[in-house]
Amino acid sequence: MFAVTVRDHMMIAHSLRGETFGPAQRLHGATYVVDATFRRVALDADNIVIDIGRASDQLHALLAELSYRNLDEEDAFEGVNTSTEALAQVVADRLAERARAGALGEGAHELHSIAVTLRESHVASASYERPL
Amino acid sequence: MFAVTVRDHMMIAHSLRGETFGPAQRLHGATYVVDATFRRVALDADNIVIDIGRASDQLHALLAELSYRNLDEEDAFEGVNTSTEALAQVVADRLAERARAGALGEGAHELHSIAVTLRESHVASASYERPL
Amino acid sequence: MFAVTVRDHMMIAHSLRGETFGPAQRLHGATYVVDATFRRVALDADNIVIDIGRASDQLHALLAELSYRNLDEEDAFEGVNTSTEALAQVVADRLAERARAGALGEGAHELHSIAVTLRESHVASASYERPL
Amino acid sequence: MFAVTVRDHMMIAHSLRGETFGPAQRLHGATYVVDATFRRVALDADNIVIDIGRASDQLHALLAELSYRNLDEEDAFEGVNTSTEALAQVVADRLAERARAGALGEGAHELHSIAVTLRESHVASASYERPL
Amino acid sequence: MFAVTVRDHMMIAHSLRGETFGPAQRLHGATYVVDATFRRVALDADNIVIDIGRASDQLHALLAELSYRNLDEEDAFEGVNTSTEALAQVVADRLAERARAGALGEGAHELHSIAVTLRESHVASASYERPL
Amino acid sequence: MFAVTVRDHMMIAHSLRGETFGPAQRLHGATYVVDATFRRVALDADNIVIDIGRASDQLHALLAELSYRNLDEEDAFEGVNTSTEALAQVVADRLAERARAGALGEGAHELHSIAVTLRESHVASASYERPL
Repeated sequence: MFAVTVRDHMMIAHSLRGETFGPAQRLHGATYVVDATFRRVALDADNIVIDIGRASDQLHALLAELSYRNLDEEDAFEGVNTSTEALAQVVADRLAERARAGALGEGAHELHSIAVTLRESHVASASYERPL
Repeated sequence: MFAVTVRDHMMIAHSLRGETFGPAQRLHGATYVVDATFRRVALDADNIVIDIGRASDQLHALLAELSYRNLDEEDAFEGVNTSTEALAQVVADRLAERARAGALGEGAHELHSIAVTLRESHVASASYERPL
Repeated sequence: MFAVTVRDHMMIAHSLRGETFGPAQRLHGATYVVDATFRRVALDADNIVIDIGRASDQLHALLAELSYRNLDEEDAFEGVNTSTEALAQVVADRLAERARAGALGEGAHELHSIAVTLRESHVASASYERPL
Repeated sequence: MFAVTVRDHMMIAHSLRGETFGPAQRLHGATYVVDATFRRVALDADNIVIDIGRASDQLHALLAELSYRNLDEEDAFEGVNTSTEALAQVVADRLAERARAGALGEGAHELHSIAVTLRESHVASASYERPL
Repeated sequence: MFAVTVRDHMMIAHSLRGETFGPAQRLHGATYVVDATFRRVALDADNIVIDIGRASDQLHALLAELSYRNLDEEDAFEGVNTSTEALAQVVADRLAERARAGALGEGAHELHSIAVTLRESHVASASYERPL
Repeated sequence: MFAVTVRDHMMIAHSLRGETFGPAQRLHGATYVVDATFRRVALDADNIVIDIGRASDQLHALLAELSYRNLDEEDAFEGVNTSTEALAQVVADRLAERARAGALGEGAHELHSIAVTLRESHVASASYERPL
């Protein structure tokens, strides 16, 4: 199995609902350093999984839709706890949509799976992996 | 599959038995930067795998039982080569015990697996993954 | 010259005023991974600059006053652009106050200077250094 | 499952063929920071997956065969696009050959799989994993 | 003293002349992860050293002039050993030119100094610092 | 001012004397990831501060004298608290001796200063800088 990973980041404000979250129930924020991994069983005719430049561009465009925003006021997240793990799923699902729509190139239709990791600090991260 | 990872560290002295280990047969020591990863198929009612704060606290308490000690003189490791891989298993198994005992919250009973990586330097690490 | 550096982090929401900041004028947030460096010309009687445990505890307590908050609503920052560089100064000045008040131990009175770096992502950081 | 990872690097020149690669079609170069991971279901009699020192030495020797070279002029890569993913496979396959030849010790015959990751920058990497 | 640092990278081919360089006398290549640091005694009216977005854009544009090239064939480096330290100076000097030309904003005229670090691997880097 | 930094590591056991150190008064250990920085005002005839390969070899040889040892039983440290800061000075002083003895090449006589940082974990480090 082959994989390619590209990294970018987003900066958001949000709050989390539920006693579990303690002080994180207050409005605060986070930088998420995002690693998007694309897996494929075999390489394509160019000998790659996916073009790193194209993958970086698509990840950047996708994160720009979320970054510099207060997620508590975004329609897409109404009634949703925007935990790090939940946001990892959002990013992975949106990358999968872009792959299916052709934005990642023809070869992206051969992708096996996508994994997304969000690092919220030097000591904590969350990830989500899904088939394509 | 979702995952959450928290990081902490421990500082120990030990020696390793067997010609394989060369100079590491002498009493020496290590800082292990420890990444504990908790995996779960679906998120809980709070939209998380496990509370990051609680996971950090439990990992910290567990590592405090090992840190600032000479493992050669600990009863728990009598006759055991405390290699990085073996210590990764010790940490993972003790986290699993704490999860089963409820210390990681009710949701921890739904955990799929635990993986522990110990980084012993900037160029070497070992890990152990087990189901829960 | 000797130095000791300890690391911790804080997660905050804020917005920045001024056209310069583009999309960062919207309410958003950041994780700041904070490195606090304490410099001293000579070591103390224990052969250290400052106790690493004590420095970590004081940095953690100080960051807890800022973390999990919307800085736009904090009295301390009324009318202030809470840029990364400005927050680095806030952390350094508050550490200096704690040092002068004795919270970092007697030896802290011999400190030469304090430098604070805030990493806001994997590609950007800001710092402030001041004498003590 | 247990794993041990060792890190080293290589510095090479090459060019990539195909419009996909844009400016990377020109002769340029890269530092690849290489992580080689060895997996094994159970530990050996010394309580390890593989000796970290021996694994490091073999990885270093293998990378020395590739480093400080223009891959466009190496016979081994004639007609081959030396993408990061393709080079990850080359390193993994050559490690597997060394393992089978006994260079990684007797225990290496029990290895389950080898995974190799090549980090080409702070924002991009590729990897290849194979059974042994 | 305040500072802001932004990070980007470039990938180049080159060779080094002189017995000192051993195998690096052959045509090879490198990824340089570049940290550009801008220092200033006091903050500007926006409470910043320099706009991080603008600094990132200028660093990226500057590195694009060097990246994906064989430096041995660039007129700018004829007869010059393009060591990591020499390239750090090239990047710092070109940033200084851009600062003086106004590309980094009006505030850049108040910059005290620029420091550039090029990381060529996980174990080696070089830097150059100059007044502005 | 130019600088070159090389990285290596050592793994030692030791204990620290004095109530300040709490649990670190027990025999324990550490991995120190060591960054050695060599500064020079101007580059030499080869356009470098110091040969990176030679600097790495000397740092490695020097750390081998300390690594895989219990510092409490080394004559060189009798009656000395081997804090991270104190060990940074030991490494810097020994590098300076090697530089003066010619082991770092003729150009090393032009070095301005040496700085050594020891990272003892992902959250703490100490350093020492001295003229040459």
